[in-house]
Amino acid sequence: MKVLLVIADGLGDRPAKSLGGRTPLEAANTGNLDLLAREGMVGFIDPIRPGIIPGSDTSHLNYLGYNPEKYYTGRGPFEAMGTGLKLRGGDVAFRANFATVDERGIVVDRRAGRIRERTAELAAPLNMKIEDVDIMFREGTEHRAALVLRGPGINTEVTDNDPHSDNLPPREIKALDRSGEKTARILREFYSRSLDILRNHPVNRERREKGLREANAILFRGGGVVPVLPDFNEKYRIKGGYVAAVALVSGICRLAGLNDFTPPGVTGSTDTNVQAKIKAALDALKQVDFVVVNIKGTDIAGHDGDAKAKKDFIEKIDDALESVLPQRDDLVFCFTGDHSTPASVKEHTSDPVPILLRFPGCRRDGINHLDEITCRNGSLRLKGENLMDVLLSSANLSQKYGA
Amino acid sequence: MKVLLVIADGLGDRPAKSLGGRTPLEAANTGNLDLLAREGMVGFIDPIRPGIIPGSDTSHLNYLGYNPEKYYTGRGPFEAMGTGLKLRGGDVAFRANFATVDERGIVVDRRAGRIRERTAELAAPLNMKIEDVDIMFREGTEHRAALVLRGPGINTEVTDNDPHSDNLPPREIKALDRSGEKTARILREFYSRSLDILRNHPVNRERREKGLREANAILFRGGGVVPVLPDFNEKYRIKGGYVAAVALVSGICRLAGLNDFTPPGVTGSTDTNVQAKIKAALDALKQVDFVVVNIKGTDIAGHDGDAKAKKDFIEKIDDALESVLPQRDDLVFCFTGDHSTPASVKEHTSDPVPILLRFPGCRRDGINHLDEITCRNGSLRLKGENLMDVLLSSANLSQKYGA
Repeated sequence: MKVLLVIADGLGDRPAKSLGGRTPLEAANTGNLDLLAREGMVGFIDPIRPGIIPGSDTSHLNYLGYNPEKYYTGRGPFEAMGTGLKLRGGDVAFRANFATVDERGIVVDRRAGRIRERTAELAAPLNMKIEDVDIMFREGTEHRAALVLRGPGINTEVTDNDPHSDNLPPREIKALDRSGEKTARILREFYSRSLDILRNHPVNRERREKGLREANAILFRGGGVVPVLPDFNEKYRIKGGYVAAVALVSGICRLAGLNDFTPPGVTGSTDTNVQAKIKAALDALKQVDFVVVNIKGTDIAGHDGDAKAKKDFIEKIDDALESVLPQRDDLVFCFTGDHSTPASVKEHTSDPVPILLRFPGCRRDGINHLDEITCRNGSLRLKGENLMDVLLSSANLSQKYGA
Repeated sequence: MKVLLVIADGLGDRPAKSLGGRTPLEAANTGNLDLLAREGMVGFIDPIRPGIIPGSDTSHLNYLGYNPEKYYTGRGPFEAMGTGLKLRGGDVAFRANFATVDERGIVVDRRAGRIRERTAELAAPLNMKIEDVDIMFREGTEHRAALVLRGPGINTEVTDNDPHSDNLPPREIKALDRSGEKTARILREFYSRSLDILRNHPVNRERREKGLREANAILFRGGGVVPVLPDFNEKYRIKGGYVAAVALVSGICRLAGLNDFTPPGVTGSTDTNVQAKIKAALDALKQVDFVVVNIKGTDIAGHDGDAKAKKDFIEKIDDALESVLPQRDDLVFCFTGDHSTPASVKEHTSDPVPILLRFPGCRRDGINHLDEITCRNGSLRLKGENLMDVLLSSANLSQKYGA
């Protein structure tokens, strides 16, 4: 049997004043989820474990069966993936900033006036090759960016150049031991070349003329090696795919060896075409055994503190799930979130996340609506690390342990 | 206080069409279990962990406090126990087949025509002593059998002789390193003697005359060392016993050092005398502190796909539990299964298993019937590894962790 796992990012929530004390899931009108709940089981999942606030990266890793304590190598690699850079296991990635240095080379603003405009243009010429190492540089939000080194002999045994306060010179880039000497040499050369490139960049000429802080230097920190994830398809002896518009999630799926079935034009926002995502996933299941879909809008609404928008987006997801119904008797269907992002908090929290599991012939909890209140009466109590085991055994795709 | 743990093998189930969409437990008329549930707590146990499909071997090991990741040494030893051979820790056990070889020694049928008849007679003379090593050989179902070596210097550092396909010679038995040389020598001698014994065996003379494939060679594979389980009685500082007709379960209990209180005449089938088993357990509790009872019929009915028979057998268990009631105020009583065997699936599944726990003065969940639906409202959510701790602390037989 095939498996469809739909992850509404940041789904879990808390009572919202604007919804009369109900959570977005509780307030949402979700006829299709109601039907699937009634025909299946509901409950809670702790993406990592109770009381741990998950990131989307650690949670998706754990859900897919990659223990984040082993495979999460820090923010550098995962933020770099989040910029859309297509990383490979073994790449070394740093978090980077556009910064402003004065004529003496002192950092006068670590964030280059929180530059927002035309950072893609600034980043483009910073992609280069030094010796046999490919340097990839990609802008993120505001002054943030990612710096990635790919090549032989590159590692993280180096100090970074970020002084972490203004009015200091960049820190000297040094090898921590002999193995880091090549990386340090490449990074020094990169820093030197980037100063020249940025000084003469048209965007900075314009900023000079406008009296804005120039983005004329790159500071980097938090280097980490992109993890090598054991191939998902070999690990579970099935074929897997994904549908995800958010670069961080698609980056993890790609590293795991899942096939990309994301349709063109979808976004990681509340205006995304959820219908197209679900349809792409159902189509993909003609070719593969397992598809994970990430839908980001719920998280965005939570971060915005907009419980009403989150409720509306949940209803949009519910509409799109209509197309699952005719196929549900050949499917293990699971709907959950990767963490909670309560609108009242505007950030991720450790609250357990509602989960729904429905497959042909499964037990029925007799619960008619999926939300943070009804789920306490459901039978499911899972941790993120259980999810793949539960989905694959529900689909008869796993082996008995013993006799 | 004493502890009575009753394990209805394969108890958990899913909605069954033949029971109007109810599970066997849900449909069963279980007045005694209802009373015990009302006076106690119910909920679910994951025998291994969510999504893992337990075998009876891995589950019973885990329930008794022997982590299967440490003590489960593969199918060879546990299947050998399943034949009824009384194994000891350190024995080396192989899965074996009766096979047919031609006059050149080529394996023409790895399963000797799936022989069913008189295999006990064929097996008997294959029990022998070679050097200082005892060879035990016991028939299983059809062509299957178990080969066990017991003696000093025996290990698994050998290749096996099963070519895994027909029309090949048996593979040469070789030591994988110097430590395996004695085992290889004993196995070669066993193979050679077994050829002589089987060639002249009356059962094979009869098969020759009838034109049936002779069972004239023994192929073996999957060798494993029978685990040495720390003694149950020392581990928990109590005296333990068991009642179990199924050889695999009784084998594990015996390895753990539990005393056998199984009454004569009980079987591992739906026609077994459940009354006699429960009575034997209650009698045993006059001598020991803890008794585990395995009742196999629920699993048989599940494997047969017969939800109605499973429901009927559950009612038979319930009748037998009548004798527990008068003693329940001196008893920690626990009723559960070692895994689910839904009649709709006819195989083990990873569905969590309903569990009931009742002891004098315990909390009461106020739930009147034990089944897969009501249990979601109970207070218990256990993993197999928790079970002994919960039972012993409920019986005031364990120590405080800390001050």
